[in-house]
Amino acid sequence: MTSKVVVCGVGLIGGSFALAIKSALASVANERQKVQIVGMGRTRAPLEQALQLGVIDAIATDWASALTGADLVLLGMPVGQMAPVMAAMAPHLEAHTLVTDGGSTKADVVAAARAAFGAHFPSKIGQFVPGHPIAGAEKSGVAAARANLYLDKRVVLTPLPENAPEAVRAVRTVWEICGAKVSELAPAEHDRVFAAVSHLPHLLAFALVHDLATRDNADQLFGFAASGFRDFTRIASSHPEMWRDICLANRNALLKELDAYMMELMKTRVLLASADSAGLEEMFDVARTRRDAWLDALENAA
Amino acid sequence: MTSKVVVCGVGLIGGSFALAIKSALASVANERQKVQIVGMGRTRAPLEQALQLGVIDAIATDWASALTGADLVLLGMPVGQMAPVMAAMAPHLEAHTLVTDGGSTKADVVAAARAAFGAHFPSKIGQFVPGHPIAGAEKSGVAAARANLYLDKRVVLTPLPENAPEAVRAVRTVWEICGAKVSELAPAEHDRVFAAVSHLPHLLAFALVHDLATRDNADQLFGFAASGFRDFTRIASSHPEMWRDICLANRNALLKELDAYMMELMKTRVLLASADSAGLEEMFDVARTRRDAWLDALENAA
Repeated sequence: MTSKVVVCGVGLIGGSFALAIKSALASVANERQKVQIVGMGRTRAPLEQALQLGVIDAIATDWASALTGADLVLLGMPVGQMAPVMAAMAPHLEAHTLVTDGGSTKADVVAAARAAFGAHFPSKIGQFVPGHPIAGAEKSGVAAARANLYLDKRVVLTPLPENAPEAVRAVRTVWEICGAKVSELAPAEHDRVFAAVSHLPHLLAFALVHDLATRDNADQLFGFAASGFRDFTRIASSHPEMWRDICLANRNALLKELDAYMMELMKTRVLLASADSAGLEEMFDVARTRRDAWLDALENAA
Repeated sequence: MTSKVVVCGVGLIGGSFALAIKSALASVANERQKVQIVGMGRTRAPLEQALQLGVIDAIATDWASALTGADLVLLGMPVGQMAPVMAAMAPHLEAHTLVTDGGSTKADVVAAARAAFGAHFPSKIGQFVPGHPIAGAEKSGVAAARANLYLDKRVVLTPLPENAPEAVRAVRTVWEICGAKVSELAPAEHDRVFAAVSHLPHLLAFALVHDLATRDNADQLFGFAASGFRDFTRIASSHPEMWRDICLANRNALLKELDAYMMELMKTRVLLASADSAGLEEMFDVARTRRDAWLDALENAA
């Protein structure tokens, strides 16, 4: 029996998902377990590239043919593009097809899905199980895709009340086949957590590089930047359009985190301006201790 | 002829300096070129460890014996400890001995040197050539020292008007022997540049981890933190005491950088709060383009 998986938006996320599934099934010594990966996208060139690279098996040019007999759809495009895609696919979605996504924000994607499915096809919203694979990289595009991108990485599902337990279980199983560790959060909780540990750090890194890049002595400054700066700003090499969309999609939670951080910087400024030696060392020490404990826990879990 | 090099503060910086010199001379097929590395420090245990690890050849317990016949002294302790060390060594410094340091800030170290040498031994200030090897690591201590720490890394010398050209040249040569690329800046200019590209990023990383670590849901937040967060906060695992000293030593330049960054964050907040999609993408794009150009230049230089 051949499964049909549709990947819409064959970039790093969608392409790696396709490669991970192919790789996992290739290692299963079961002739009956086959998968056909069909690519969809807004532009033709990346799909042709994905086909040439063996990431997908076929290109679909319309949703009607893409979704005929499809078992699973992964929406791999930036979150800002989800709404029109969902609206376009909704009429053609067969009753047995599950849909999930790789978007970095969830409340807005859920709202887009409710608008797309719920308005005209209310029974189909239960087929959409929202997800977020925590496996970014500053590289983007299908050329950066790799079968092990999700190995030992976390995937967060944010199930809807309308999702049948077996639908959530099926999507969970697909991600586990890709090597991921799956957990669940409510959509709004997901967005609050990732505003703090992902979206804010991206914004801070972009802001620092932008600040220095726009100065008269930028060349001198970058000339003396070293490995600490390189790692601190690695995420400032992330995709501008994708991160614009993420920041806007999760704007409210991100503004709260940004305000909390500016408050923390004001407190730090007071310590520094008053030369509060003990206060500064205490703050640095709390940070280092917590970070090192986190790294230890990560290593023990791996 | 055996050279005598004294390393005071045998941690990552001093220990790696010792190993780099030993390693470089070991590869020179010249029996006459030998070096003896003598360690000094405020506590005995790290010196014993350095001796056992072969990082140093001997331990000196007082400055009088340490400096007898010494050709070069490297001060490898945190910048906050330089002043008393310089005051203690000044009376015993022979006329031919050069002194340099590995401190991350320079105006304060120069001031400490002027106080220590200039007050009672004004002729000796010319023997001190201030320096800053740009080769941090979040690890500290002699166990983390390695012979290649400075390979292809930059070292900034901030010479004094009193330094003879041959003194500066000699210190430059020693760092080049360690594999470093040496450049020169005025002390105040050095401190302004490193406030921007090193000290501020450290402060920002400590502040973010501290902010999250002190929340009620810290465990949940760290539970979902991934590789972007890990790299962004790598420098928050730096040594709290050392970074307290650096921040305080370079307080004025760092406050200016912190204020500039908070202004940048306020502008970013306006873009986000007003959902200025084009403005956000433009800012992210400027940052990514500049960072990628910097990385390309680094790779071409290597």
